[in-house]
Amino acid sequence: MSEISPLAFVGEGVEVGADVKIGPGAVLLGPCVVEDGAWIGPGAQIGAPPEMSSLPQNAAWAGDLQHAGVRIGAGAVIREGAVIHQGSYRETTVGARSWVLNRAYLAHDVLLGADATVSAGVSIGGHCVIGDRVNIGMNAVVHQRRIVAPGAMVGMGTPVTRDVPPFAKVYGTPPRLTGVNAVGVERAGHDPRLAEALLAHYSAGEFFIGNGWLPGDLGTLGDAVQWWRAQGELRPVSVA
Amino acid sequence: MSEISPLAFVGEGVEVGADVKIGPGAVLLGPCVVEDGAWIGPGAQIGAPPEMSSLPQNAAWAGDLQHAGVRIGAGAVIREGAVIHQGSYRETTVGARSWVLNRAYLAHDVLLGADATVSAGVSIGGHCVIGDRVNIGMNAVVHQRRIVAPGAMVGMGTPVTRDVPPFAKVYGTPPRLTGVNAVGVERAGHDPRLAEALLAHYSAGEFFIGNGWLPGDLGTLGDAVQWWRAQGELRPVSVA
Amino acid sequence: MSEISPLAFVGEGVEVGADVKIGPGAVLLGPCVVEDGAWIGPGAQIGAPPEMSSLPQNAAWAGDLQHAGVRIGAGAVIREGAVIHQGSYRETTVGARSWVLNRAYLAHDVLLGADATVSAGVSIGGHCVIGDRVNIGMNAVVHQRRIVAPGAMVGMGTPVTRDVPPFAKVYGTPPRLTGVNAVGVERAGHDPRLAEALLAHYSAGEFFIGNGWLPGDLGTLGDAVQWWRAQGELRPVSVA
Repeated sequence: MSEISPLAFVGEGVEVGADVKIGPGAVLLGPCVVEDGAWIGPGAQIGAPPEMSSLPQNAAWAGDLQHAGVRIGAGAVIREGAVIHQGSYRETTVGARSWVLNRAYLAHDVLLGADATVSAGVSIGGHCVIGDRVNIGMNAVVHQRRIVAPGAMVGMGTPVTRDVPPFAKVYGTPPRLTGVNAVGVERAGHDPRLAEALLAHYSAGEFFIGNGWLPGDLGTLGDAVQWWRAQGELRPVSVA
Repeated sequence: MSEISPLAFVGEGVEVGADVKIGPGAVLLGPCVVEDGAWIGPGAQIGAPPEMSSLPQNAAWAGDLQHAGVRIGAGAVIREGAVIHQGSYRETTVGARSWVLNRAYLAHDVLLGADATVSAGVSIGGHCVIGDRVNIGMNAVVHQRRIVAPGAMVGMGTPVTRDVPPFAKVYGTPPRLTGVNAVGVERAGHDPRLAEALLAHYSAGEFFIGNGWLPGDLGTLGDAVQWWRAQGELRPVSVA
Repeated sequence: MSEISPLAFVGEGVEVGADVKIGPGAVLLGPCVVEDGAWIGPGAQIGAPPEMSSLPQNAAWAGDLQHAGVRIGAGAVIREGAVIHQGSYRETTVGARSWVLNRAYLAHDVLLGADATVSAGVSIGGHCVIGDRVNIGMNAVVHQRRIVAPGAMVGMGTPVTRDVPPFAKVYGTPPRLTGVNAVGVERAGHDPRLAEALLAHYSAGEFFIGNGWLPGDLGTLGDAVQWWRAQGELRPVSVA
């Protein structure tokens, strides 16, 4: 039997790569690209219009294609009931091998990096940029236009109203920086002792914003800090 | 092609107006009225039975209609995976032009006003009354029987356990009144200076409950205050 | 008309008992047992693979069955858009007459007792054990491997990061024990005065962990305490 269920709806303008699985009841609306090896669960909802009052709520299932598209990266997993919207000016993007878990939501123009996990029930607002290897806990929520830098962890149910720096752990209402994701530092191939150096900077209120200074003790974490700095004006979370 | 997808299920007892769009996989169960110009997204779930242990979990898809109905107002937008239940004694109602966004939920007998936004992932319990132009942030939750008055804003992830007065901004766990929705006051056509007058009352602990007194400095906001007062016994949120 | 909608997908390896209702768009993937009298709502998603990176994301809809199964107990209610995953080493289980409400989620290997309510929008992580008559409020979330003992109540939106003892009421971020579910004590057939005795123990920091001592004043609540104690190493929530 086909691994693309005949009970899925794959609309006009949807390009599906090799070795893709799509479950019954999934709906994919164009424009949309699904790269090789992606797994799309039953009832997943990909490519409906942006939730913006200024943009038309079109009927893409009837061939009325609009908006800037969606891209599901190679090997990504999109689980049951997850929702990913069309971009308004760029492709809403799920990076390679990332997981968008059941009933999670990426709004228009979100860029999600590679090897990231957006857990069950998470809602991410429009325009957000979420880095590689980020892990966002169940039922958490990210305000539109926020940045969550590579390697960061967001705790269950946390409403993220500020930007989250690299490898930070964030939790609570309002959200606070509660530590550094030391396991993530090591898994990403860095010297595990760098986690301590990074935490010392955060604890001292240093978030690497507004200038080009990069302390020597950050070692190979410098790339993630440069990524963070490149995202424009930032308002980081406070330290617990 | 039809803008009502042949892959939607529109059951017995569902009346659909003109210029309505319904996406693939949407399920509409009667009794239900969808007014002109509404947009029902893929996978939306409208008209299943109230979640009350005292009422039957009937199979409306097989023609076993029960309960008090659902009404989707003209021009309303119901997004992917949103859930709206049958009323138990009145029609569960979405007001004209309101948005019930992806994976949001209105329980039995909820009355949602016009031009309101119920954001992605929100859950609203049974019997709630939500006024015009209310905005409820992503993944927030409203306890059954609560009142959210016109123009109010509820922050992301906030569990609303008390009633929310007109144009109030509410945020946190437990929820607190953190300000007045000044933008909403202006957009609703009021003198923007009235926001300040309203905030002064809330800050002084005056929530316009229990008598007919209406201070003169509220001007055209008096209608919203009268609406609030008319909802019966009220237990407003505390001020931050 | 059939009370099992022809628009539901009931896959290979799914055994369906007598008097079961299944709505349009529901997806059931095997291995899975649905016991007599269960009600499966439109768009419910039952039996997709565990969300574990170490396990294959198989296409059960195409006959590729794997994993340890799902069991839906007699008379259980699974509402629209709810998600229940395959177990990895035991059947993910919903107890008799329990309600898994709309857009709620039980991860792999969760054991949910009888007569429990998992409210709308709740997410429960892998391996959790949830006792009989538990009530979890809307949009709450339970961390993987946590225990929620019989009769406990979890407040709306609460992120449960610790274990919850019998008949405890838990609320907030971080979650705190705020009282005892006296109504639940009485409904479960116990002397209502036992609620006070139990609260006195919790308030004194006594959570019945680590030894076999069972105070005499707990009366018929002793069974629930023994259940709790039998769950292995426990880290209970703190008292408010």
